[in-house]
Amino acid sequence: MTRVAVIGAGQTKFDEHWSKSLRDLSTEAGALALQDANLEGRDIQALYIGNMSAGRFIGQEHLAALTADHAGLTPIPATRCEAACASGALAFRKAYMAIKSGEYDIVVAAGAEKMTDIKGTSAISTLMGAGDQEWESSIGLTFVGLYALLTRIHMKQFGTTREQLAMVSVNNHKNGVLNPLAQFRKEISIEDVLKSPMIADPLRLLDCSPITDGAAAVILASERVAKSLDNPVWILGSGQASDTLALHNRTNLTGMLATKIAARKAYEQAGLGPEKIDIAEVHDCFSINEIIAIEDLGFCEKGLGGKFIEEGRISRSSEKPINTTGGLKSVGHPVGATGIRQIVDLTRQLKGQCGPMQVKEVKTGLALNIGGSGATAIVNILGKE
Amino acid sequence: MTRVAVIGAGQTKFDEHWSKSLRDLSTEAGALALQDANLEGRDIQALYIGNMSAGRFIGQEHLAALTADHAGLTPIPATRCEAACASGALAFRKAYMAIKSGEYDIVVAAGAEKMTDIKGTSAISTLMGAGDQEWESSIGLTFVGLYALLTRIHMKQFGTTREQLAMVSVNNHKNGVLNPLAQFRKEISIEDVLKSPMIADPLRLLDCSPITDGAAAVILASERVAKSLDNPVWILGSGQASDTLALHNRTNLTGMLATKIAARKAYEQAGLGPEKIDIAEVHDCFSINEIIAIEDLGFCEKGLGGKFIEEGRISRSSEKPINTTGGLKSVGHPVGATGIRQIVDLTRQLKGQCGPMQVKEVKTGLALNIGGSGATAIVNILGKE
Repeated sequence: MTRVAVIGAGQTKFDEHWSKSLRDLSTEAGALALQDANLEGRDIQALYIGNMSAGRFIGQEHLAALTADHAGLTPIPATRCEAACASGALAFRKAYMAIKSGEYDIVVAAGAEKMTDIKGTSAISTLMGAGDQEWESSIGLTFVGLYALLTRIHMKQFGTTREQLAMVSVNNHKNGVLNPLAQFRKEISIEDVLKSPMIADPLRLLDCSPITDGAAAVILASERVAKSLDNPVWILGSGQASDTLALHNRTNLTGMLATKIAARKAYEQAGLGPEKIDIAEVHDCFSINEIIAIEDLGFCEKGLGGKFIEEGRISRSSEKPINTTGGLKSVGHPVGATGIRQIVDLTRQLKGQCGPMQVKEVKTGLALNIGGSGATAIVNILGKE
Repeated sequence: MTRVAVIGAGQTKFDEHWSKSLRDLSTEAGALALQDANLEGRDIQALYIGNMSAGRFIGQEHLAALTADHAGLTPIPATRCEAACASGALAFRKAYMAIKSGEYDIVVAAGAEKMTDIKGTSAISTLMGAGDQEWESSIGLTFVGLYALLTRIHMKQFGTTREQLAMVSVNNHKNGVLNPLAQFRKEISIEDVLKSPMIADPLRLLDCSPITDGAAAVILASERVAKSLDNPVWILGSGQASDTLALHNRTNLTGMLATKIAARKAYEQAGLGPEKIDIAEVHDCFSINEIIAIEDLGFCEKGLGGKFIEEGRISRSSEKPINTTGGLKSVGHPVGATGIRQIVDLTRQLKGQCGPMQVKEVKTGLALNIGGSGATAIVNILGKE
C-alpha cells in the first residue's frame, strides 16, 4: 500500500468576505495550493471538498462539481464530504484513502464555507443541523448551549475553573496575532474574556469561535510522486470515529469517546504515542473543547486539562504547543474549511515555513477536527521523513 | 489490490412515508441489507451514506453520524457523500474505494432522502440546489425547465419524437407494476403521457420522476471475506466524472460528457464494452434523460436513442433490458437513495432473486446515476464470477 504525502497547501484569509462568493474562496485556496505544490490544474486527478451546509447558507448543493467547474478542473471526479464541522478533515481523509486505493496519484482536498452575507436562515439555526434535529434543535438547544452543558460537568467533576477556560482563548489570540490569515489578530486578557457578554452560562462571547467565511486546500500525492520532491510531509496515521448525535445518549460527558477512538487508531497507524507529537491543532470551537481535546488526545490526564493550560504548557515555546497559528478562536471557523486549514498549518510548521509563528524542531504534528458535539472525530498525524 | 463484492442488499418501499422519519428509513434499509448478507451490526467497519439535502428538507446535517447512532453502529467511521441526485452512487463508490485502500473489509453503503412531510422550502426549490445557484436557480430555472431545454435540442437535432419520450415512461411503468417496492405500480399508455399536464414544454407530468421518501443499502466486502460466500456479485468497474454545473457552459447539449467519461473508465476497468452489458439501471429523472443515457453509454448510436426505444429494444425480454424494476419514474426518486437502489436491483437481478421481474441469463449489469443536469455522472458495472 502506498504512503501518502501532502505536497502543497493554500488558504484564503479567514474573514467576513463581503465581496467573495463561496466558489471564489474555494478556487482561490486551490490555486494557492497548486502554486505551492508547483503543479497545474491538469495534474489534479480528483477533487474532494468538505462543506457543511452550503445548501442552507447559500442555496447551493452539488458543491464539488461546482468547485471543479469554477476552478477549470472538469471532468475529474469531484466529491463533497460532510460531517458538520468535521467536513474538512473528512474530505482530507477520503482523499488520502482514494490515493491509498490506487485510484489516483495526485488529489486536491479542500474545505470551504460561506457563513456571512447569506440569505435564508441564520447561521446559529443552520449550525444546529450538526446536532440532533428531533431531540436537540427542535426543543431550542443551540451549539453553545450544548457546550455550556459540557463545561458545567467538567467544572463540577474536575474543578476546572472559569479562568482556565479563559486561558484557552487568551493563548489562541496570542498566537493568532502573528497569523496574517487569521480573522482576529488582537491579544486579549483573561479579564477581557470574563467581562465579555454571557452567551450560554458559563460560556461568554470570547469563549466562542466566530462566524467566518474562508477556504483552504491541500494537494495529496502518492509515494511514487512525492518521493522525488524536497521536504514532503507524510500522513503517518489517520483515524475517524462516530458517537451518538444527541448528548443525552452518551454514557460519559467529560470526554469525547469518538476522539479517543480516532486518536488511538491514528497513533497505532503512526506507530507513536501522544508524547511524540511535537505540535497539535485541536478543535476549539468553544474554549471547553480545547481542554477536553488535550485530555482525550492523551497530552495530559483526564481532568487535568485546565491545569495543563494554566501551567503554560501549550504555549508556542512550551513542550506541547497547541493551536500555534490561533485555533478556531482567532483564525476563525468557516466550518467546512477548518479541518483542511489545520492540515495547512501543520504542513507549514513541518516545512518550517511559518516565519515568526514557527515552532522549533517540529517533526510530527496532529490535527483533531470535531463534528457537532463530538458525534464525529477525525485525527490525522503528519510527519517528516 | 483487493477485488470488492456486494454481499447484501436492502431497500425500503419507495413511497410517501408520512409515519417514518429519515432515520427510520435508513435504518430499515440497513437492517434489511445486513439480514440479506447474514451479518450483524458489529460486523460493519464503516458506514457511507448518500444524501442530497437533508439540511434543507428536514434541518438535519451530520447525517452519517446520525445514521450510525440510530442504527446502533457507533463508534464506526461514518461518512456522508453528496453530489445532488448522484449522492447514492457516490457513497457506493467511496465505500468501494475504502475497501480497495485496505482500510476495511466490510462496509455498508446507504442512500436516503425524506422529501415529503417536510417543513421549510419546497422540494422544487431545494432540488434546484443541484444546479448553479448564481446562474440558473437565481433567475427562476427549475430542474424540469433545464431538462426541457435538453429535450428541445434533442428533438430538433435528431428528430426524437414526443411519442418516443412517452415510451420511456410507458416501459418504466410496465416494469414497475411487478415491483412491490415501487411507488407507482400502474401501467400507463402513450396517450396517458401525452394528455398529462404540461410541466415545462415539451415535458409533461408523466415524463417526470416523482417526489419520494425512501432508503436503500448494500453491504460491500473485500475479496478475503467475499470469496468464501455463495454467489457474490463483484464490482467489475467504476467511473466518476464531472462537468460544468450550468448548462450554458457546455459545448454540447445533446449528450452528457461526464457520463461518457465515467462509462469509458468503468468499461476499461471491467475489460468489457457496452455490448457485453446484460441489463442496465439508468437515471430517468425525466424521460429525455433515459434516451440521452442509452446513447452516452454506447447502447446505441448518438441520436438513435428514441428509435431504439420505439423498436422495443429496452423491454424486459429484449436484447438490452433497461430499468427492469421500473426506473426512477415508477420506483420513485428519493434523490440520495436512487444510486444505491440501482445497485440493490442489479445485485438482485445478478443473483436471480427478482421473481416475476427476473431477466434471464444476467451476468453483467450497469448502473448510471446522474447529479444535476449532468455535472456529476457515476457508472458502476457489476458482474458474477
